[in-house]
Amino acid sequence: MKTRAAVAWAAGKPLTIETIEVEGPKAGEVLVEVKATGICHTDQYTLSGADPEGLFPAILGHEGAGIVREVGAGVTSVQPGDHVIPLYTPECRQCKTCLSRRSNLCTAIRATQGRGVMPDGTSRFRCDGAQVFHYMGCSTFANFTVLPEIAVAKVREDAPFEKICYIGCGVTTGIGAVINTAKVWPGANVAVFGLGGIGLNVVQGARMVGADRIVGIDLNPKREAMARKFGMTHFVNPDAVGRDKVVQAVMDLTDGGADFSFECIGNVEVMRQALECCHRGWGESIIIGVAPSGAEIRTRPFQLVTGRVWKGTAFGGARGRTDVPRIVDWYMEGKINIDDLITHTMPLDDINRGFALMEKGESIRSVVLY
Amino acid sequence: MKTRAAVAWAAGKPLTIETIEVEGPKAGEVLVEVKATGICHTDQYTLSGADPEGLFPAILGHEGAGIVREVGAGVTSVQPGDHVIPLYTPECRQCKTCLSRRSNLCTAIRATQGRGVMPDGTSRFRCDGAQVFHYMGCSTFANFTVLPEIAVAKVREDAPFEKICYIGCGVTTGIGAVINTAKVWPGANVAVFGLGGIGLNVVQGARMVGADRIVGIDLNPKREAMARKFGMTHFVNPDAVGRDKVVQAVMDLTDGGADFSFECIGNVEVMRQALECCHRGWGESIIIGVAPSGAEIRTRPFQLVTGRVWKGTAFGGARGRTDVPRIVDWYMEGKINIDDLITHTMPLDDINRGFALMEKGESIRSVVLY
Repeated sequence: MKTRAAVAWAAGKPLTIETIEVEGPKAGEVLVEVKATGICHTDQYTLSGADPEGLFPAILGHEGAGIVREVGAGVTSVQPGDHVIPLYTPECRQCKTCLSRRSNLCTAIRATQGRGVMPDGTSRFRCDGAQVFHYMGCSTFANFTVLPEIAVAKVREDAPFEKICYIGCGVTTGIGAVINTAKVWPGANVAVFGLGGIGLNVVQGARMVGADRIVGIDLNPKREAMARKFGMTHFVNPDAVGRDKVVQAVMDLTDGGADFSFECIGNVEVMRQALECCHRGWGESIIIGVAPSGAEIRTRPFQLVTGRVWKGTAFGGARGRTDVPRIVDWYMEGKINIDDLITHTMPLDDINRGFALMEKGESIRSVVLY
Repeated sequence: MKTRAAVAWAAGKPLTIETIEVEGPKAGEVLVEVKATGICHTDQYTLSGADPEGLFPAILGHEGAGIVREVGAGVTSVQPGDHVIPLYTPECRQCKTCLSRRSNLCTAIRATQGRGVMPDGTSRFRCDGAQVFHYMGCSTFANFTVLPEIAVAKVREDAPFEKICYIGCGVTTGIGAVINTAKVWPGANVAVFGLGGIGLNVVQGARMVGADRIVGIDLNPKREAMARKFGMTHFVNPDAVGRDKVVQAVMDLTDGGADFSFECIGNVEVMRQALECCHRGWGESIIIGVAPSGAEIRTRPFQLVTGRVWKGTAFGGARGRTDVPRIVDWYMEGKINIDDLITHTMPLDDINRGFALMEKGESIRSVVLY
């Protein structure tokens, strides 16, 4: 069949809207009609050429929601008509990692996903006869895409696609980091470095689980108001307190240090601050942001020997098929706010405007509606 | 009263045996007759001058065992005749950290201990009228020493001082790192970097809790036999496999990476290897070794984002008054081996020989008997 899609032809070039030939689902795969997709910094990271593993031409996009239209042989967990969220971190429930129950980083299709192809080693997309790569196993910048059965989360049908698509990445990454990776406890003091989309979701996750003080740190004073709306209790602007005094400022606001801190930027110097502002004895710092290729974190080991813990998280430690439907429920029940985070919507034809808004910091999340 | 003690007069100088005037215990303090003390690398670190917080003149030593001879006003938890192990990490059970139950790093007397004095700000030691500093709150290189009540662990009276003194630091640090900090589970695969005294105690701790593979890594092939006796199942000599291939060698021996790794050396490059040989998704690396002043650990944040955890431990995460008596029981019940680790004993007059043996790597632990 044919679909409209935004194709990334090369690093640094705008996307172009093309008609793509989509091959129907093979065994263990499903064809999904994407109804909405967010535009995430990771798409931008790859499109910019900074991602050393980026492949072109490709159909980017990994934060979608849609409806199953066709299933391949052997598919049992979903059927045509089911509403689903594509998962760039699948959940096979059979690999060593899934069975360990200690991590969400399912390895079932990792190798082929990283090469931009489906588990059988081939792409389902062609443009004018030439192969186009999949991206993060999702490729939601296409109106129709093909996904492995283990890479879709079935969700309730009354949830609006144009909101819950954000659960496919940003919402789950932020809230999941709080509840799955950090396991923030009620009454904890939390520091959130970077108040973009991820940071705001960390803030509301911390509020949801009953954190006490939620300190937000951002260079942009315009972000304070929105963050307070999501649960931030204290704001630190590094330019106001002095960039070398951020650690002390957070310690002062958290009775000696944060019980948990989250780095939501991707800056290795901020990662160090986030660790060092943690409470001696037990404070844990969680890295969420993606650092530039080759950049390294560093600190004195004394920071760890005196009880701080350095962790990271991917997709919020969430097991996609298990946890994502639950987060959709939380949204529908009003426990989390997504509506205010989706600041712009646009048709596929305007997708490059969505990228531009993000780069300029003018959007929290732009969503493409098909 | 008077006591014999080994005094460190200045960095890099041998200790000299002196007659010291000991002031009796003030309120909340106890006078302890030290019966035996180990000589630890930390004593050597301070004596060498490398410790930026080292104070002179001081009575070093922090790994002792002895008998309470006198108690000050208000002391209720011990009485004269009780057998005790001094604690350089006290346990007040009342400070924020003790009450948190998330850390053993009691802060009750931290400030004064760091300044080489008792909680009231003064020293109990004088030599020819001049003040001599306490060390790590213990000063076990004196036949009689004064300790805060919260810094002694009462232990059973049938346990031999010349063995259980080692529980005052090395044994608890190694075994505690396994059971308190890492919480190694039965069947886990463990990597231990450095097979000196701490490393051997990590090895036997891992065996005690039912670890599966216990991989030891050391440049000195002579350490293999002893480590195997303590439970090591596989040995990696970095010079045999290639120093840049240690991470891969450990991963090959542990089905994709260690569930837990321990750095028992104090080398920041080894700390990096210890982290990076951990299993993707959940492997935890515990720093035990003390790095040179100013040295920094580093890695790519990707290591943490893909699920590895970087931690550290001090005194094995043990709460001294609670956990140390239990480890003494384990020794008496034959669950752990201390006898083979104490390779040399000597009178106080020979203490400098004990330091020399340690520096040359010819001892695991030398113990001074009073």
